[in-house]
Amino acid sequence: MNAIAHLMRPNSVAVVGASADPSKTSGRPVAYLKKHGFAGTIYPVNPRYDAIDGLKCYPDVASLPAAPDVGVVLLGAERADAAVRELAQRGTRAAIVLASGYAETGSEGAQRQARLLAAAGSMRLLGPNTIGLVNLTDRITLSASGALETEAFGAGNIGVISQSGGIVGALLSRAAASGIGLSKLVSTSNEADLDLADFLDFLVDDDATTVIALYVEVVRRPERFLAAALRAAEKGKPVVAFKVGRSESGARSAVSHTGALAGSDRMYDALFRHAGVIRVNAFTDLLDIPNALASGRCLEGKRVAILTSTGGAGTLVADSLGMAGFETPVPDAATAARLRALQKGDHAVLDRNPIDVTLAGLQPDLLRGAVRALLDSPNFDAVAFIIGSSGLAMPDLMVSAIRDSLPGTNKPVVGYVSPHAPAITRLLNGVGIPALTTPESTTSALDAMLRYGRIGRRNRVSECPPIEFDLSELPVGSLDEAQAKALFSRFGVPSVREVAVATAQEANQAAHAFGDKVVLKLLSNQITHKSDVGGVAIAVPVDAVGARLNRMRDDVETATGTPARAFLLQEMISGGVELILGFHRDPLGTALLLGMGGVTAELIKDTSMRLLDPLTGLAMDDAVEMIRELKTFPLLDGYRGRPKADLDALASAIVAFGRMALTLGSRLVEAEINPLFVLPEGQGVRAADGIAVIRGDAG
Amino acid sequence: MNAIAHLMRPNSVAVVGASADPSKTSGRPVAYLKKHGFAGTIYPVNPRYDAIDGLKCYPDVASLPAAPDVGVVLLGAERADAAVRELAQRGTRAAIVLASGYAETGSEGAQRQARLLAAAGSMRLLGPNTIGLVNLTDRITLSASGALETEAFGAGNIGVISQSGGIVGALLSRAAASGIGLSKLVSTSNEADLDLADFLDFLVDDDATTVIALYVEVVRRPERFLAAALRAAEKGKPVVAFKVGRSESGARSAVSHTGALAGSDRMYDALFRHAGVIRVNAFTDLLDIPNALASGRCLEGKRVAILTSTGGAGTLVADSLGMAGFETPVPDAATAARLRALQKGDHAVLDRNPIDVTLAGLQPDLLRGAVRALLDSPNFDAVAFIIGSSGLAMPDLMVSAIRDSLPGTNKPVVGYVSPHAPAITRLLNGVGIPALTTPESTTSALDAMLRYGRIGRRNRVSECPPIEFDLSELPVGSLDEAQAKALFSRFGVPSVREVAVATAQEANQAAHAFGDKVVLKLLSNQITHKSDVGGVAIAVPVDAVGARLNRMRDDVETATGTPARAFLLQEMISGGVELILGFHRDPLGTALLLGMGGVTAELIKDTSMRLLDPLTGLAMDDAVEMIRELKTFPLLDGYRGRPKADLDALASAIVAFGRMALTLGSRLVEAEINPLFVLPEGQGVRAADGIAVIRGDAG
Repeated sequence: MNAIAHLMRPNSVAVVGASADPSKTSGRPVAYLKKHGFAGTIYPVNPRYDAIDGLKCYPDVASLPAAPDVGVVLLGAERADAAVRELAQRGTRAAIVLASGYAETGSEGAQRQARLLAAAGSMRLLGPNTIGLVNLTDRITLSASGALETEAFGAGNIGVISQSGGIVGALLSRAAASGIGLSKLVSTSNEADLDLADFLDFLVDDDATTVIALYVEVVRRPERFLAAALRAAEKGKPVVAFKVGRSESGARSAVSHTGALAGSDRMYDALFRHAGVIRVNAFTDLLDIPNALASGRCLEGKRVAILTSTGGAGTLVADSLGMAGFETPVPDAATAARLRALQKGDHAVLDRNPIDVTLAGLQPDLLRGAVRALLDSPNFDAVAFIIGSSGLAMPDLMVSAIRDSLPGTNKPVVGYVSPHAPAITRLLNGVGIPALTTPESTTSALDAMLRYGRIGRRNRVSECPPIEFDLSELPVGSLDEAQAKALFSRFGVPSVREVAVATAQEANQAAHAFGDKVVLKLLSNQITHKSDVGGVAIAVPVDAVGARLNRMRDDVETATGTPARAFLLQEMISGGVELILGFHRDPLGTALLLGMGGVTAELIKDTSMRLLDPLTGLAMDDAVEMIRELKTFPLLDGYRGRPKADLDALASAIVAFGRMALTLGSRLVEAEINPLFVLPEGQGVRAADGIAVIRGDAG
Repeated sequence: MNAIAHLMRPNSVAVVGASADPSKTSGRPVAYLKKHGFAGTIYPVNPRYDAIDGLKCYPDVASLPAAPDVGVVLLGAERADAAVRELAQRGTRAAIVLASGYAETGSEGAQRQARLLAAAGSMRLLGPNTIGLVNLTDRITLSASGALETEAFGAGNIGVISQSGGIVGALLSRAAASGIGLSKLVSTSNEADLDLADFLDFLVDDDATTVIALYVEVVRRPERFLAAALRAAEKGKPVVAFKVGRSESGARSAVSHTGALAGSDRMYDALFRHAGVIRVNAFTDLLDIPNALASGRCLEGKRVAILTSTGGAGTLVADSLGMAGFETPVPDAATAARLRALQKGDHAVLDRNPIDVTLAGLQPDLLRGAVRALLDSPNFDAVAFIIGSSGLAMPDLMVSAIRDSLPGTNKPVVGYVSPHAPAITRLLNGVGIPALTTPESTTSALDAMLRYGRIGRRNRVSECPPIEFDLSELPVGSLDEAQAKALFSRFGVPSVREVAVATAQEANQAAHAFGDKVVLKLLSNQITHKSDVGGVAIAVPVDAVGARLNRMRDDVETATGTPARAFLLQEMISGGVELILGFHRDPLGTALLLGMGGVTAELIKDTSMRLLDPLTGLAMDDAVEMIRELKTFPLLDGYRGRPKADLDALASAIVAFGRMALTLGSRLVEAEINPLFVLPEGQGVRAADGIAVIRGDAG
């Protein structure tokens, strides 16, 4: 058993600084341990008391009759160091430090935190500034959270890891009120030692936990987090995350253009997506979605039957589902006939969706049959059942009618509870039917059940792992355009045809190989904004290219004070769509960015982003998704009679660019293709301009 | 007292079809009237009983000792007609019909509904298919809603009108659970007679109601609705609406291009905006936002102080506010000093925002002082106070501390309750501090308080009411391009300079007046897609225009089989931004549509829309808002070194186009300018092409 297992399931707990007054924060942990049924040994430690609530109280850690598995330290930051050191010296496996006043307060606090960590030595540490942990599976509460005042909690299958103690309390009390069962909750907070990734790794192997919910402020060790999350995906345990910091503006900047569009929160999006983590954006979804996934059911498609006895709430749910792209088709003829056979002689209209049985249809047998008929229909992937005010009078009958319909199908059934009816919500959740209390969360729950099913089916086989490459061949520094594109094409991204020339005469000789009109550019690794200095000429007639070169030489000299010595003569591309392909590296990893070209696309930030897997790069499926995610994707897909673009070649180019980033690793400081022309189907892509910066050593 | 007033506050109520079994739907109304304290006379009517719950029961309406103010009809659709006729004959002021099986079920039901309305004669009717109404101000419940099982309701200031009975029940029970006080609730449902607009009009004058919440499926009489909503705005009573049907796809189609982008739900947006109605998109906002506005406080700016004792929840709220464009600046030096003076010797960091007093700061005096300091600061427009799990132990102290800080300032204070803590939520709402239970709803509430303040300040003075115009001068039918633009310019939208020509010779003579290059187009009122038949030539050198005309004549004849007889020679515009300006008419009214030109803008549906006021047209402020609402507005505003566009001229053109639509009324079938060039500042706008269809009579 490792230290985290001891921390989660200790046989003995020392509570250092325990108070005999349970109304004080320092009085709570001992009181809660007893109240919620901890079966092991509790050692209160406080020189001011001989006993607390019938338990012998020890003056210090040294006096304890045995080393405890876990020490809960309730002392302030000034005295916590000493207690932690004593616990470590006694051989305690792990300590929990609740005090605040550490890294969260600034640099002085950060030093205090470093001292605390040093004092712990090889003993593991949860906190500081944590509210502790709650293991509902085993009825062990190592926490001062006021939410534990609640008399009793039903244990369930959802594990919670939070980087805020207050959020643990909020989720604990909210789950209890809704009858949503949790397994373990831990507040990692300052993460001086044990962090999010450690507990995620633990919960992946915890048999009592089938779904994991995360409240995230920062992922400190992305590789470990990614590894643990991918293990969870392999085991079929959904991980759901709510991350704050979405609105931080301009947290990081990057040199290249696409990088500037990235922003660190989008990197979290990319990280979570890559890890198979379902990111949620409404706080209540952090309970509702894990609860829906804990049912173990997923949607195979987007067609939802809504069964209701009250029109308005059915309409609300249908409208919300429609906004999210779900379909609510009418029942097929056979299903409508089954429904009609259940309910005769009334005005209910059963061949619509929502299927409204009206008040007269609120009979358990009818409901049981109706849910069954809808679940049996090949035209529906899920059933949303609406509970109206009139159901309040007979909650058990209603709930058992739905529950009885579940066996024999894997299709999800969810309940939307329209009035305030916590008793019904708890009953539904208690029998494994996810109960939701807003139309939006009903939609979110079904959407997550759909997405999780797809995560399971995704194809992550990469066709472009890193390749053997002799790094000593690499030019170093800021490459000129020709060098940059030569590098890109070595990894499989084709460029426009081009030739470097120095004089008007060379240009005139070379130009005819490129057609009627050509592009002429300054070639320089110093000047990045060539067009600003008169260094770009488009659609130059081949006969005029020499003269144009001479003029460009003059213009550049006028603008920069230095004569231009080298020029690039390129074929002119027409009929393609311009994109930008770049990469972005930050503490979370390396990501590829694809952007539509043009000023309008730039204004609406029409970009997509995917994390590069550190081992396997980018999968072809991911590249295809990146393309389709662009808001203006139809421009590539035959919109209004345009030719379809060569999407296969574009996807291959993205994957190849990823292979380059992965192969060159930290040697590659910056790289961007802008523009990347995507030609009509079958004609491929061409890098028409690009930059690359290479570092001299792997540093 | 009008019929609605009698309906809302009857002295006597006949309950036709009342059952003695209160567990049946038909047994509820009498039971609820008694339970919730109706002080007037109740006449149960049912030939099967002599008495119900101690009340004399009458065999039929004719036997009643007096005409009741209101009749509540609980009979099924088959027998409701007769009861309604009898009530009308007795002189009852209004009847409520609960039965379903009417227009909501199809055409047969619609006929049944017409018969019901006929039976009512001059008696007013609520329903059918309604759950009735609840007047909490006067403790009068004319309803069978199961939500009335709740023992008692606190009355408040929010009036609710719902087109669904189930939603009335949901809002009633949810409000009671949160301590949100309602005044009146009415379910208008099928609206055979009395509708949304009638009750809105009533509530505007109801002294007990200060905020009005609407659940809307359809606005049947937009003019009456608009008039009532504008009266509410004048009286300073916020109206908040949740409308379903957002996801209906392609409900209406329109001939012109911008019209096709409209869609009926956007018309509701335009109607609500014009009426000063705050539209909400999350169902819980339909209670939370009225509750926030019922505090009577509005934000003057976007700077919010977040005061918390628990870090996580404060971060949640800050993040959510940031996503919505709010600012959470740190306290100014003077305020920080006041905060520090309150809390000494702890690790709390008080010069950040959220301002985290930590657990140690959870003392009423400290909180009172801190809220006061933040409200006094000129750097904050509102305070959001976070209640964490640790506040659960002392709810009254916490709530009274905040409440004591309210007098002497009009700035809003809202509470975010992080754990499940309904008692605290009710306490806060009870003292007029809006309590929210999700970070998103906290943001929505503050956002609504900001928006409502702005609605009050908006300038709706129109500079373009309809003008005198001799409609007999109008050409009729589908106008050609020159006629259409001539019409637009008569109303104040300038066009490109142009001249109609018939021959190459005429073209050659005229061309030099337009500069070096010109535009040549086919002129026809038959062919709308000129470029499809070779009828558009751009940038024609003036010397080549005659030859080009001859070629165009041939091309058009080849494509259409008819020789082209007329052409339009236009100045060529360069350096402008292309927009589309059109209008859209549907049952809700007439709206103007502005769209950015270009295929990308079309793909992302970059359009804005405003309703034309039927009396005053479009205000200049609205035109300016329309322009700024475009996603790619920066293209008009100097983005990346472009020249700033002539926004004043564009706004004037929009207002002028609106004046045209208003003046011509239903004679104008279709009109669109595409493109409308907006030139750099000071150079105005030019309509470069356009269509108009005029009907021969006002029909």
